[in-house]
Amino acid sequence: MNEHTVKVFDDELGQLRGLIAQMGGLAEQAITGAIEALVRHDLDAAAKVIEGDKKIDVLEHEVERLAVQLIALRAPMADDLREVVAAMKISNTLERVGDHAKNIAKRVADIEGHRHIEPLSVLPAMAGVASEMLHDVLDAFAARDIEKAMSIGERDRAVDDFYNSIFRALVTFMMENPASISQAAHLLFVAKNLERIGDQATNLAEMVYYAATGEQMGERERIPSTAAN
Amino acid sequence: MNEHTVKVFDDELGQLRGLIAQMGGLAEQAITGAIEALVRHDLDAAAKVIEGDKKIDVLEHEVERLAVQLIALRAPMADDLREVVAAMKISNTLERVGDHAKNIAKRVADIEGHRHIEPLSVLPAMAGVASEMLHDVLDAFAARDIEKAMSIGERDRAVDDFYNSIFRALVTFMMENPASISQAAHLLFVAKNLERIGDQATNLAEMVYYAATGEQMGERERIPSTAAN
Repeated sequence: MNEHTVKVFDDELGQLRGLIAQMGGLAEQAITGAIEALVRHDLDAAAKVIEGDKKIDVLEHEVERLAVQLIALRAPMADDLREVVAAMKISNTLERVGDHAKNIAKRVADIEGHRHIEPLSVLPAMAGVASEMLHDVLDAFAARDIEKAMSIGERDRAVDDFYNSIFRALVTFMMENPASISQAAHLLFVAKNLERIGDQATNLAEMVYYAATGEQMGERERIPSTAAN
Repeated sequence: MNEHTVKVFDDELGQLRGLIAQMGGLAEQAITGAIEALVRHDLDAAAKVIEGDKKIDVLEHEVERLAVQLIALRAPMADDLREVVAAMKISNTLERVGDHAKNIAKRVADIEGHRHIEPLSVLPAMAGVASEMLHDVLDAFAARDIEKAMSIGERDRAVDDFYNSIFRALVTFMMENPASISQAAHLLFVAKNLERIGDQATNLAEMVYYAATGEQMGERERIPSTAAN
């Protein structure tokens, strides 16, 4: 590439990174918004999260369009190509995180007697860890911070512990409150959505590591999932 | 492109399509295998499905590598570029279908008293519709058959109906069998995995339509999801 082409390429790569930061911010907001809507049983807030997911989908298309155009027109090599492909995969994963938040928001209407379902009170803390993981992995991507990316996976264990304990608590709750089984079943899925967000933040950390180093994160750095299904 | 380049490109595109057909076949097998393992409570069969998912993941990486190489080296235009990008997205979705089948297989160990859980008997029929949708959408991709792709979405309604009825049946079962609530909860997730596979087959149909026509499937052809969360 000549100097001008390099400049154009860097600008376009910057654009790509900007779109991803925007997607990440929206996905974080969606997680927090969905859990707040659930806890407060706020249907309007839930509707906003559901509507807001469209914006994340639009941004994903935009990243894909720009990345494909970049590869086709600039034919980047090695490091650059790796970064563009990583951007596509990261945006695809963020879109899935957005879907999980949307799925939580969709269940708000199904969980009316929420004040009486004890395990519900643990969900905001679980959501806090998951959205913090997401926040930090996007920071790591923006700063090409490998150390930070490597530290994300450790926290997935905390998310899995939350999930396993909420699963048990909900099963006990169902046994004691047969009339609320349907609502508790919806909460099982909410906990599962948060657990998946933790997994996806861990996957994102591996993508960030790969984009920065060109190597797969080693088995030593990688923490296997400990969620019991 | 000159004649030679066109020939090489077509060969590589054929390779890409071959890999996708292979992934699709493995994903179909995984769905059937997981549900059979569940119904027969066969832990060995479940372990095979879990192990087999790695092969699908490897193929996805292979599709991605080949597609990126194709875009970077051949700089395909319009129709060709669209097909390569579609191949990447299709393989990504097939990888997710494989994950759903793997998740079902992972729960086989948690569902021991399966013979007594009545709603379990409906799962094979539900899995049958979902894997048939997957089979047909891959046929539609191989044959560039737009009509066939457009017919897939209609069947997603049947999968959603299965899901809604299994959800209700499991809630009723839990009320009547508090001691089996934990196992029934695992079955809720199995039904959810199958419901998601139906959604993904529908998404695949939209990708096949787009790859073949260059247009998004119209609202008229698209069937919205009717699963109640």
